[in-house]
Amino acid sequence: MSHNTYGHLYRVTSWGESHGPAIGCVVDGTPPGIRFSEAGIQSFLDKRRPGQSRFTTQRQEPDAVRILSGVMPGEVEGELISTGTPIAMEIQNVDQRSKDYSDIARRYRPGHADIAYDMKYGVRDYRGGGRSSARETATRVAAGALARLIVPGLKIRGALVRIGEIEIDRSRWDDAAIDANAFFCPDAETALLWEDYLDAIRKRGSSVGAVVEITATGVPAGLGAPVYAKLDQDIASNLMSINAVKGVEIGDGFASAMLSGEENADEIRIGADGKPEFLSNHAGGILGGISTGQPITARFAVKPTSSILTPKRSIDAAGQEVDVMTKGRHDPCVGIRAVPIGEAMVACAIADHYLRHRGQTGRG
Amino acid sequence: MSHNTYGHLYRVTSWGESHGPAIGCVVDGTPPGIRFSEAGIQSFLDKRRPGQSRFTTQRQEPDAVRILSGVMPGEVEGELISTGTPIAMEIQNVDQRSKDYSDIARRYRPGHADIAYDMKYGVRDYRGGGRSSARETATRVAAGALARLIVPGLKIRGALVRIGEIEIDRSRWDDAAIDANAFFCPDAETALLWEDYLDAIRKRGSSVGAVVEITATGVPAGLGAPVYAKLDQDIASNLMSINAVKGVEIGDGFASAMLSGEENADEIRIGADGKPEFLSNHAGGILGGISTGQPITARFAVKPTSSILTPKRSIDAAGQEVDVMTKGRHDPCVGIRAVPIGEAMVACAIADHYLRHRGQTGRG
Amino acid sequence: MSHNTYGHLYRVTSWGESHGPAIGCVVDGTPPGIRFSEAGIQSFLDKRRPGQSRFTTQRQEPDAVRILSGVMPGEVEGELISTGTPIAMEIQNVDQRSKDYSDIARRYRPGHADIAYDMKYGVRDYRGGGRSSARETATRVAAGALARLIVPGLKIRGALVRIGEIEIDRSRWDDAAIDANAFFCPDAETALLWEDYLDAIRKRGSSVGAVVEITATGVPAGLGAPVYAKLDQDIASNLMSINAVKGVEIGDGFASAMLSGEENADEIRIGADGKPEFLSNHAGGILGGISTGQPITARFAVKPTSSILTPKRSIDAAGQEVDVMTKGRHDPCVGIRAVPIGEAMVACAIADHYLRHRGQTGRG
Amino acid sequence: MSHNTYGHLYRVTSWGESHGPAIGCVVDGTPPGIRFSEAGIQSFLDKRRPGQSRFTTQRQEPDAVRILSGVMPGEVEGELISTGTPIAMEIQNVDQRSKDYSDIARRYRPGHADIAYDMKYGVRDYRGGGRSSARETATRVAAGALARLIVPGLKIRGALVRIGEIEIDRSRWDDAAIDANAFFCPDAETALLWEDYLDAIRKRGSSVGAVVEITATGVPAGLGAPVYAKLDQDIASNLMSINAVKGVEIGDGFASAMLSGEENADEIRIGADGKPEFLSNHAGGILGGISTGQPITARFAVKPTSSILTPKRSIDAAGQEVDVMTKGRHDPCVGIRAVPIGEAMVACAIADHYLRHRGQTGRG
Repeated sequence: MSHNTYGHLYRVTSWGESHGPAIGCVVDGTPPGIRFSEAGIQSFLDKRRPGQSRFTTQRQEPDAVRILSGVMPGEVEGELISTGTPIAMEIQNVDQRSKDYSDIARRYRPGHADIAYDMKYGVRDYRGGGRSSARETATRVAAGALARLIVPGLKIRGALVRIGEIEIDRSRWDDAAIDANAFFCPDAETALLWEDYLDAIRKRGSSVGAVVEITATGVPAGLGAPVYAKLDQDIASNLMSINAVKGVEIGDGFASAMLSGEENADEIRIGADGKPEFLSNHAGGILGGISTGQPITARFAVKPTSSILTPKRSIDAAGQEVDVMTKGRHDPCVGIRAVPIGEAMVACAIADHYLRHRGQTGRG
Repeated sequence: MSHNTYGHLYRVTSWGESHGPAIGCVVDGTPPGIRFSEAGIQSFLDKRRPGQSRFTTQRQEPDAVRILSGVMPGEVEGELISTGTPIAMEIQNVDQRSKDYSDIARRYRPGHADIAYDMKYGVRDYRGGGRSSARETATRVAAGALARLIVPGLKIRGALVRIGEIEIDRSRWDDAAIDANAFFCPDAETALLWEDYLDAIRKRGSSVGAVVEITATGVPAGLGAPVYAKLDQDIASNLMSINAVKGVEIGDGFASAMLSGEENADEIRIGADGKPEFLSNHAGGILGGISTGQPITARFAVKPTSSILTPKRSIDAAGQEVDVMTKGRHDPCVGIRAVPIGEAMVACAIADHYLRHRGQTGRG
Repeated sequence: MSHNTYGHLYRVTSWGESHGPAIGCVVDGTPPGIRFSEAGIQSFLDKRRPGQSRFTTQRQEPDAVRILSGVMPGEVEGELISTGTPIAMEIQNVDQRSKDYSDIARRYRPGHADIAYDMKYGVRDYRGGGRSSARETATRVAAGALARLIVPGLKIRGALVRIGEIEIDRSRWDDAAIDANAFFCPDAETALLWEDYLDAIRKRGSSVGAVVEITATGVPAGLGAPVYAKLDQDIASNLMSINAVKGVEIGDGFASAMLSGEENADEIRIGADGKPEFLSNHAGGILGGISTGQPITARFAVKPTSSILTPKRSIDAAGQEVDVMTKGRHDPCVGIRAVPIGEAMVACAIADHYLRHRGQTGRG
Repeated sequence: MSHNTYGHLYRVTSWGESHGPAIGCVVDGTPPGIRFSEAGIQSFLDKRRPGQSRFTTQRQEPDAVRILSGVMPGEVEGELISTGTPIAMEIQNVDQRSKDYSDIARRYRPGHADIAYDMKYGVRDYRGGGRSSARETATRVAAGALARLIVPGLKIRGALVRIGEIEIDRSRWDDAAIDANAFFCPDAETALLWEDYLDAIRKRGSSVGAVVEITATGVPAGLGAPVYAKLDQDIASNLMSINAVKGVEIGDGFASAMLSGEENADEIRIGADGKPEFLSNHAGGILGGISTGQPITARFAVKPTSSILTPKRSIDAAGQEVDVMTKGRHDPCVGIRAVPIGEAMVACAIADHYLRHRGQTGRG
């Protein structure tokens, strides 16, 4: 079954393909009285927009968002006030070039969703991958931009921590560096290495995977639930729904499998402000599915895109064995553009749980 | 908000704490006419049951499941036939020993959900961890045992592939070994190493993490959806809802971040049976959120339990700084018992998507 | 599809058949810190219990509720405090007499759900009607008893306003009368008429329909939503889910089809307390799907039960034409026992929307 | 909480206000391979469109629907094929005239949702009633037009059976008459009476209520569920979500409260085709929440609109007592345009249950 809605009180329904007239989403459950602007939402979309460096696809899309419902004009020019009713956001598709895809219309790219799509639906819009196109993620970024405003004090920051074989050096982490390179890389030196590394990959028409890390600060304690609807469960679910993601970690993640109980225990003292203060954060800000007030950290792995120049063995829709290669525009590392998308998906999960927690407990 | 239901057409609602009279679940959406027995469900629960070796908690629970609704007697003694209405399953709590927990009633174990629980609810049943007790997972195993029967030909097999610093050697993988040791270990030699390794950990009252791997074969192609409600997303969500899980991978998972597009491409030929045959399975049986018919592989990381003998710095519910250690029964590696739980959660996700796919497409 | 859960933040999942060992429900989403007792829940169940007068079925069920999870003991003997986790409630089935039903095991009672059940599922537990037995409604009353405690100041009161051809005289409405007769009748004179009327029906093994009216006071303004998730929509949905209900009205209901806009307008003034005061209540306390703070009024029609002594033409499961009559215990007017059930379903809808409103707006 | 989605497998999410740039809906869960056209959807919208006679609002809206996603072009000009992904449908708002509403911007019309809206959200878009405008219902008609195509053989037909004090004469029912007058009236003689009756109401700036009846034929047996998710429950919920609806009935509805069990029993024989044949249809095609294959009949009551010329006592948003009358365009009987809307909502409920039934049972 198709099911294109995520969230429970902050609910986002997404629609659209890369080669239709538009894509969009409906955000249901935004509290009334939230003040924002199209320009504010747009600033997040601009981070995800393709064609901003030679390291992402050269498809040119302005990705201009339009708010169609759920708002009133505010007192200030451009300001919008949410009314509590569904907020529809729409983005026109501009650069469609469907001719680029004619070669692969009926040939399955190995490692791509084409074949699974056909196995499921029997019919498929081959132009640009249909729903499995990364284009859909623009709507997530729009929904996430709004979600950030719902939880007072919430800050969410994503960064790329690995491209292929090259990981950042965490001792050089500098938040200020993240926006100063084409990779959302917090380590300026590694960013330089990545330039050469990715240039080589791009030139030979190849692609490579990546790891993204998201940190959320200002998350109130108490969000989530002890068994199901764990906050980390819903963050993981949201992140796994991003195209090409194959793994998700919270806090120490897979490394915690190698820890002892003593190492893993985040000790607690009373801080200068009289509140509990954790002395470490192996848990990634979530214990038993519930936020503790510490920063929440999540990482996810993005596989390399299957659109490559090297011919690979495959079949076509008629069941004939063929060799497949993808000409046209390529994204050598789709993980780069996944950074703002990951931020958005974490924001949506936190906003949703903030409203749910407030509903059940009356607090927050 | 509390939300203790998972699944959309195969829906499981779980309830109960380790120190109440019972735990249980309600399975809603089972097709009519499924034949099973209490004994069959019980055989899966027996795999998860504590106290079966010195490497798991010595809490003694018979974990006898009782089916309370949704069935008719079959023709054969003990056989039940599902009627299509909710199947309630209940397990009495027997070995409660609440005195063991008196020390920690008001003291927060570092790394444990106690403190987050209190931050959320303000009230907390300190006896045995309330809902965050691993005891709740017995209901998952019961629900999963039933889920396995819904998809014809489905087989699900879990194994422990890492304890702490010791990983299995995949070249020695032997399915037959899995049930021949106390660890669900597919590599008999590593199982021997683990015995000594865990004995040492157990004796010093410590604990250690682990990695579990689940493989599902016989999954029809076409389950899942291309964007949200991805099959891997729902598997990841289900696995992340298991206590102490901090990371989830599908297929190559985090390793795929290090692959090139050429390496990651699972090439396809036409097999002897005239059907598509994948030459590798980096994708873990799921492309673009949709099953391809290949085996589905998922791994998850389990952190070490926070119940350890070494005193750690913490605070109590009154806000006083204290040192905390956990006397009484311990589980040196909760990852062992997570194996049948992981199997069950994967089974539930697949059964749910099987029914959803059938609903939308009429196939399957 | 089977789907036995209602509510969104106050979620109730119901299970069980009349001829299994027990029935029950799981209430998910109760705020933490609600104080109640099994005896308090029981008092509502006692109102619905069969066998309390000659006008309801003589089946003898103690209907003793047991709370299995989601609570801690309070300071006072018998007091329970909700912990915020799922509250499982269970009621044993005692008086099952399955022999009574042997005659109708394979014969479809005209007007009864038997045949539809078989059309849907292919298998059916003929003993007592399976899920379509009115027995299931005991779990609703238990869930509703808890729901009443969630909204401060909420009062819900049901009454029977019509049995068959005899309607009450509203000018004689007296709340105090409701509990002083066997019919929940607010008009003592009509109650006397009903005694003779129903005795005659009962003696000839017949049955008759009824209309129930529910009034909720103390409902905060602002619950509901303007289009979907209207408060009246969810009340109607909950009431229509009760066995044998064929119609639901809010406020003036069907009579409002005969009104002019001038008549229907509930005029507003500022009351002595400085708050809006409505001068009439044609709307039944809900405008555009949202509560106004006025009393909420709902009515629902209950059809006569199909278990009657007069033979009627029908078929059996083998497709043979047969005549069917129902021996054994009868309920001449199932509408009587529907009164506490209707109260409960309205309580659940209001509690759910109270939590939802609080989640979205932070108020309430 | 706001919650603008209905349906479970055939899910519709609606958005938009009458005075924003557009309204629309996202239909999620349409099976792949359904063939339809914008023109086909449009033909249903045209039935609901305002300004088609002097008896409905003179607001001029072309209500031209645009399909934005979820489809491929078919072989025939204009034909679309559903791909199984979300189908977004959008309708531009053209005739907005916000000046008409300036008088009532801050004054609450008695009987209108304005005041409840403000009580809930604190902010409100006074232009045209925001979400509570009947304009939103265009999206329902679009979603319903698609829903009709999902169940093979399904036919849904609505009719107006009462305006104010004048009911149709059922002995004169003629399906062919329904489209031959401005009222969807199946009784040509009554339609003539209504003309004069409504003209008088319109001329004095008043309004009146109505009753709509919907009949669905070709509904497969077995849709629905025995307790919750009853088919009639979901039909009632859908109909109650339509603006101004105050009551819903299935089959004999409130009249069944006056029946005896003998009268209510729909007797069954084996028909000439060897299938069960019901000799009457008091149940309205649904027994115990499950369709029997008989025609499904539902009725709903629509109250008179509160936009009238006669001044009524009210208050304004500042809490001052005022008199309110509504100038500008009026709808003397909103019940007329409710006919195609009711048809659509019944279609959506049936399509949803058709997919759910197929999911759980594999049949249908």
